[in-house]
Amino acid sequence: MTMTPNIAAAKAALSHIQMDEKPATIRAKSRDFFWYSPILKARLDHLEADFVVNPASEAEVIEILRTCYAHDVPVTVRGAGTGNYGQAMPLAGGCLIHMARFNKVKEVHPGRVIAEPGCVIRDLDAFCKADSGQELRMMPSTAHQATIGGFVAGGSGGIGSVHWGALRDLGNIIRLRVVTMEEEPRVLEFRGEELHRVSHAYGTNGIITELEMPLAPAYDWVDMFVSFKDFRESMEYSEALANEAGILLKLVSLYEAPLAKEYFQRVKPHVEADDSLVGLMVAPHSMDGFETFTARWPGARIIYRSDNVTWDRHPGPVFEHGWNHTTLRALKFDKSLTYLQVRYSYPRHIELVEKVRAEFGAEVLQHLEVMKEGGKVMFAGLPIVRYTTDERLEEIVRLHEQMGCMIFNPHRYTLEEGGRQSTDRRQLEFKREADPKGLLNPGKMITWDEPDFDYSAIYAYKGMRPAPETAE
Amino acid sequence: MTMTPNIAAAKAALSHIQMDEKPATIRAKSRDFFWYSPILKARLDHLEADFVVNPASEAEVIEILRTCYAHDVPVTVRGAGTGNYGQAMPLAGGCLIHMARFNKVKEVHPGRVIAEPGCVIRDLDAFCKADSGQELRMMPSTAHQATIGGFVAGGSGGIGSVHWGALRDLGNIIRLRVVTMEEEPRVLEFRGEELHRVSHAYGTNGIITELEMPLAPAYDWVDMFVSFKDFRESMEYSEALANEAGILLKLVSLYEAPLAKEYFQRVKPHVEADDSLVGLMVAPHSMDGFETFTARWPGARIIYRSDNVTWDRHPGPVFEHGWNHTTLRALKFDKSLTYLQVRYSYPRHIELVEKVRAEFGAEVLQHLEVMKEGGKVMFAGLPIVRYTTDERLEEIVRLHEQMGCMIFNPHRYTLEEGGRQSTDRRQLEFKREADPKGLLNPGKMITWDEPDFDYSAIYAYKGMRPAPETAE
Repeated sequence: MTMTPNIAAAKAALSHIQMDEKPATIRAKSRDFFWYSPILKARLDHLEADFVVNPASEAEVIEILRTCYAHDVPVTVRGAGTGNYGQAMPLAGGCLIHMARFNKVKEVHPGRVIAEPGCVIRDLDAFCKADSGQELRMMPSTAHQATIGGFVAGGSGGIGSVHWGALRDLGNIIRLRVVTMEEEPRVLEFRGEELHRVSHAYGTNGIITELEMPLAPAYDWVDMFVSFKDFRESMEYSEALANEAGILLKLVSLYEAPLAKEYFQRVKPHVEADDSLVGLMVAPHSMDGFETFTARWPGARIIYRSDNVTWDRHPGPVFEHGWNHTTLRALKFDKSLTYLQVRYSYPRHIELVEKVRAEFGAEVLQHLEVMKEGGKVMFAGLPIVRYTTDERLEEIVRLHEQMGCMIFNPHRYTLEEGGRQSTDRRQLEFKREADPKGLLNPGKMITWDEPDFDYSAIYAYKGMRPAPETAE
Repeated sequence: MTMTPNIAAAKAALSHIQMDEKPATIRAKSRDFFWYSPILKARLDHLEADFVVNPASEAEVIEILRTCYAHDVPVTVRGAGTGNYGQAMPLAGGCLIHMARFNKVKEVHPGRVIAEPGCVIRDLDAFCKADSGQELRMMPSTAHQATIGGFVAGGSGGIGSVHWGALRDLGNIIRLRVVTMEEEPRVLEFRGEELHRVSHAYGTNGIITELEMPLAPAYDWVDMFVSFKDFRESMEYSEALANEAGILLKLVSLYEAPLAKEYFQRVKPHVEADDSLVGLMVAPHSMDGFETFTARWPGARIIYRSDNVTWDRHPGPVFEHGWNHTTLRALKFDKSLTYLQVRYSYPRHIELVEKVRAEFGAEVLQHLEVMKEGGKVMFAGLPIVRYTTDERLEEIVRLHEQMGCMIFNPHRYTLEEGGRQSTDRRQLEFKREADPKGLLNPGKMITWDEPDFDYSAIYAYKGMRPAPETAE
């Protein structure tokens, strides 16, 4: 970027919209869960927006984008900042749009809801449940904080994906309303193939101002932990369970021993170090089928069920042990840990996990999430990695890839490196239309800045605001 | 059977329970859809019960069983008689229990319903929809006539199986209440593994008096027909569609050309002889995803959709073109047709269908239903077969089996021959307990009468009431 942003002018022009003034708040709202990664932590920790604005309507969002466009000010949008690829980190400073006040549920219908992007997912689900016994098909483990707009712009799936597949699969987003960053911002409605332009695009090419999402029935899901002494058996059990079409599941997570004993505070007293766990959410009317299925597995032992709690202390929701919460819990005990995101695709998923386990042992402990890809049950891996050096972490990634695993590298802050290491033409083409000055979340789409980047090492965005020379 | 039934005594003892007296009614209620099969028609057409009793409560069912036990009278139970394996045909005469009056919906809860066996499936779904926007996970194409008890005792799956799998899959039946036929009948409650004793047992080892079934949300499903010039493409399309986890489907049926042109009365004007059709039920909130998916298939053309009807005459529900209704429609045009039931299992399903098509050509036209088996999308085949002789029909069955297809032979009236040609030990053992005199639906469980039967030719039940010597 060769433009010089006029921060003061933009801020003055937007002074009638709610802003945060306290430095601590500005710093807090400029950060997401990037610190899961030691590599991102070293590079992004100093970053802060110049100002934070809290719109409560589409009209205010449009005004922010028009004003920042006029003054060449970069704009980064965020929900709750629960992403962990640095999606919402303002690399070039500028304006940070915080969506928390732009949060109404607008309409609920059978099978779908229309909501504003800042709506917290827990609140959205509570609203839909009270309205008509419905809830979102899927949610992140951070549902109690995360917003629906942030989930769609920065997430890929979650609790519910064992049944419904990934967020980007056809049918899992119905419609997105998007505002562009032009001299006069346009408001566009996307459906079908067009959704891919802006879903999981980190707000690099438009700002989502309304979402229409499919709903599923809201049941009083039964939370469970099932223990196994043999991790391979827990994989075979989990796959077979998810292939039982008549047993309705919302979550099947696997935690290799000794993850539960080491890092699940309230589970510890009930497991041994050699217990691998499967964390589950099962529909109450599927419990008979579930128990019948589980009884066929001699190695499976149901150690916890939320419909009949025998533990002194409630462990909290099982879903807050899965997906990104597994890493979060591990990090609370040991700051030297980090993680990866791995896809173990059908039909080689179990074999690939076993290869990885044989290669790394305790350096990479398996945490798997069962989900559907192309209709087939497979595993999304979010293994807990013992970090030593950047070089070893990069090597671990390379070794996974050499074994045939696909890595979505969470130690990178760009769309391409966190994805398939290639240009997403639909996202790029839409950015050309919708963000001609390249002001939206700058530095996150490599192909915009350096189309010939070769991915041989981590991308270093040249427009990134440098860290201060001296620390305090 | 060496016992001599005392029909008159049993009938007299039950005279306070509603009975049918008209010979035409007795004859009608003694028949099911066995006449789909020329082989069964030749063997079963003359059969009639000695009397028909219409209980309205479990207490009346118990009294019937106790009385018939005392008088050695065979008992065959039926719902609407929409089965087509002769399940409800009283081979040895005796008492026929017609369940139509025993039909209350007892309780509806989130995700489940408790109902009496004679409840018509359409009425059950309407009740659940009005109560709480729910409906059964699956239904037969005869839902407007068929009872829930008959479906569970004689059916295997249907509309909804593309999502939920087969009726016998874990979780698709929650609980069955069953009355035995002993000196003093017992009332038993079955769940889990025990369900297999009596589900799909044709009432040979107990009478179901209450069912607890899982429910799914009741949406205003959009009916559609999609045409293809190439049948193989329609198979690939259907499989890929059913593997889209985010697109909620209730029905995916395939009809090879020229089935639609020849036998679908109100569809005829809108198709050519070379059009193969896919019949669909799609959730309304999945229509965007569905249309996006379909647009990717150059050969696919949506020729009918119930949410935007452009045809002069409404074709009726698409589900009344699928499953057993396809054969029914063909038979209305051409009495020389019959059908088979074939399982094309994943991953060889498309290849196997192509082998069968190459072998038989127009003699066996493909009608496929997409469903899930072990979590994998595959095809249940109900092909339309041009009947010439019994010998050729048997040969067609053998050739299918030689090619690696599994046949559930609908030209047989026994559990074993219509199933896996082997003893179901759980059903047999329960019959020993629950029906010590062997009076329940006699002749339907080969292993009860002839444990050493070798399946080399059609089983001929020795207790079958003979046809009258002279026709009228």
